[in-house]
Amino acid sequence: NTTLKIFSLNANQPLAEEIAKEVGIPLGKSSVKRFSDGEVQINIEESIRGCDVFIVQPTSNPVNEHLMELLIMIDALKRASAVTINVVMPYYGYARQDRKARSREPITAKLVADMIEKAGADRVIALDLHAPQIQGFFDLPIDHLMGVPILSDYFEAKEEIDKDSLVIVSPDHGGVTRARKMADRLKAPIAIIDKRRPKPNVSEVMNIVGDIDGKTAIIIDDIIDTAGTITLAAQALIDKGAKEVYACCTHPVLSGPAYERIENSAIKELVVTNSILLPEENKPAKIKQLSVGELLAQAIVRVYEQESVSILFD
Amino acid sequence: NTTLKIFSLNANQPLAEEIAKEVGIPLGKSSVKRFSDGEVQINIEESIRGCDVFIVQPTSNPVNEHLMELLIMIDALKRASAVTINVVMPYYGYARQDRKARSREPITAKLVADMIEKAGADRVIALDLHAPQIQGFFDLPIDHLMGVPILSDYFEAKEEIDKDSLVIVSPDHGGVTRARKMADRLKAPIAIIDKRRPKPNVSEVMNIVGDIDGKTAIIIDDIIDTAGTITLAAQALIDKGAKEVYACCTHPVLSGPAYERIENSAIKELVVTNSILLPEENKPAKIKQLSVGELLAQAIVRVYEQESVSILFD
Ligand SMILES: Nc1ncnc2c1ncn2[C@@H]1O[C@H](COP(=O)(O)O)[C@@H](O)[C@H]1O
Ligand SMILES: Nc1ncnc2c1ncn2[C@@H]1O[C@H](COP(=O)(O)O)[C@@H](O)[C@H]1O
Repeated sequence: NTTLKIFSLNANQPLAEEIAKEVGIPLGKSSVKRFSDGEVQINIEESIRGCDVFIVQPTSNPVNEHLMELLIMIDALKRASAVTINVVMPYYGYARQDRKARSREPITAKLVADMIEKAGADRVIALDLHAPQIQGFFDLPIDHLMGVPILSDYFEAKEEIDKDSLVIVSPDHGGVTRARKMADRLKAPIAIIDKRRPKPNVSEVMNIVGDIDGKTAIIIDDIIDTAGTITLAAQALIDKGAKEVYACCTHPVLSGPAYERIENSAIKELVVTNSILLPEENKPAKIKQLSVGELLAQAIVRVYEQESVSILFD
Repeated sequence: NTTLKIFSLNANQPLAEEIAKEVGIPLGKSSVKRFSDGEVQINIEESIRGCDVFIVQPTSNPVNEHLMELLIMIDALKRASAVTINVVMPYYGYARQDRKARSREPITAKLVADMIEKAGADRVIALDLHAPQIQGFFDLPIDHLMGVPILSDYFEAKEEIDKDSLVIVSPDHGGVTRARKMADRLKAPIAIIDKRRPKPNVSEVMNIVGDIDGKTAIIIDDIIDTAGTITLAAQALIDKGAKEVYACCTHPVLSGPAYERIENSAIKELVVTNSILLPEENKPAKIKQLSVGELLAQAIVRVYEQESVSILFD
């Protein structure tokens, strides 16, 4: 006997609009602005008493601004008597700071989970968390959706690609499970790139494990950030005899030199989702954005109807 | 049997340096940078095991960046086995969002307290919180220092000012207690400005309660943000017969048009503290910054020595 409401903050308004349209309700009225000194000013312009509220906010760059908007919105909704507060985070900022790799490092992914929980969220809907262990950072229920089906379906439907000479490539050892999932859907073999990363955001492609000769390679990753890894991987694949190279990922962080690197790379097409809103300026034409709007809308409706979300996983 | 260490984040390095110098130890070695995608990257470059650590970080503009730096630093220190983590926040961002003034407003000052506590802080040293009730937002010990003595001592020592014709002016009803404290120290009467504020950051001066005719007026506030209130107040005082107008506050937020308004105002001198680092560009020469470094250093040493801090209150 509650009402479903969906609010958007500032990180990805177009995706929130799309989700609301899919669900068949208008977005909740609110504004998220800044006071003169940069402090977040939130106005929720309709009652949310007796409502199950969903907030759509990927914590993409500027991550600290987007995260604080989210926390402050949760606080406001809690104090305004929302029945449940559900956070839809298609992209989870700080997900790569998920363990102590060196002494005295923070585990910011856990800090973020604690902040969201402490602010008053009841549930989180996430998409391709950098490490699935991040689910365990929360004491509240998480629905963890996958981008692989959407990315795979796109390549499946793409006529120019010869399905019989495909190979799915993981750009590192950590991504093999993801590549395996895509390979299963596309009935293709996998290959792995053996790379060494001297320091963050700098990558070096080493060796290719698996047969790629004369094949159409699709590199799959969860996040593409500065695009160093992926563009070097694409070049290595071409150098070692691949016919052509596609790349895909769920989260197009694409910071710093990413656009330029992709533009100038051996990658034929880069397929990503709209979990993160991309700036249009200088955006390479070879970036194709697929929508996760329908997937997230389905998840929201199923959570609201108290049905299982696991059906969305395949 | 612990060691005292002081670390600075990015909000006010010069103040942190000064505090460390007063205490007589070097600042702890750390760097706080950004990854390519804007995420905070903290490196603590020395062991803090067995240490009582003090972090100096006013959460001034950009508040969300500074607050996240603080929370992530607390997380890192906690995981690196600091004995106690003490947060020195000379300025507490979001302090003005301290109650629900309208429906569905967040209480961000409480959210910030919860975040600091949840991240793992053991104690907070604050200075002139916008509302003393914010102390109650924390379940951990807070030492709440005052700027009034430093500001008063400055005017006391200023020879040009005729101490016998002084009046201390509160720019609104909420600030009368503060004006009273300064008036007691300077043995002067008080006056109050009766103003109406149509919307945030816009102020309108109304009426003056108290005798200011031919007097040297010192307006005192806790925060000066866009400087609308204070410059209109100064003009009103001159218009109603004050001989000259000084202004002072603890926290020079000074956002948006503040520098220009102060420059062009009737204020003879604006005396503030260095709780917030001010940009030098276009900074009016009539802004005088007094240091809270010694006060904070004393507080840190007393907390470290487990002595009472209340002696610093007068
Ligand atoms: N925003 C970021 N940009 C680049 N590197 C990061 C970022 N956040 C964390 N890292 C580093 O990336 C590594 C984790 O990446 P991964 O090995 O792919 O899980 C760790 O060494 C982190 O220090
Ligand atoms: N950063 C800010 N800038 C301007 N106004 C603010 C800010 N934060 C909160 N406020 C508003 O200021 C009022 C509180 O100021 P005060 O009455 O001086 O305690 C509330 O109405 C808040 O909505």
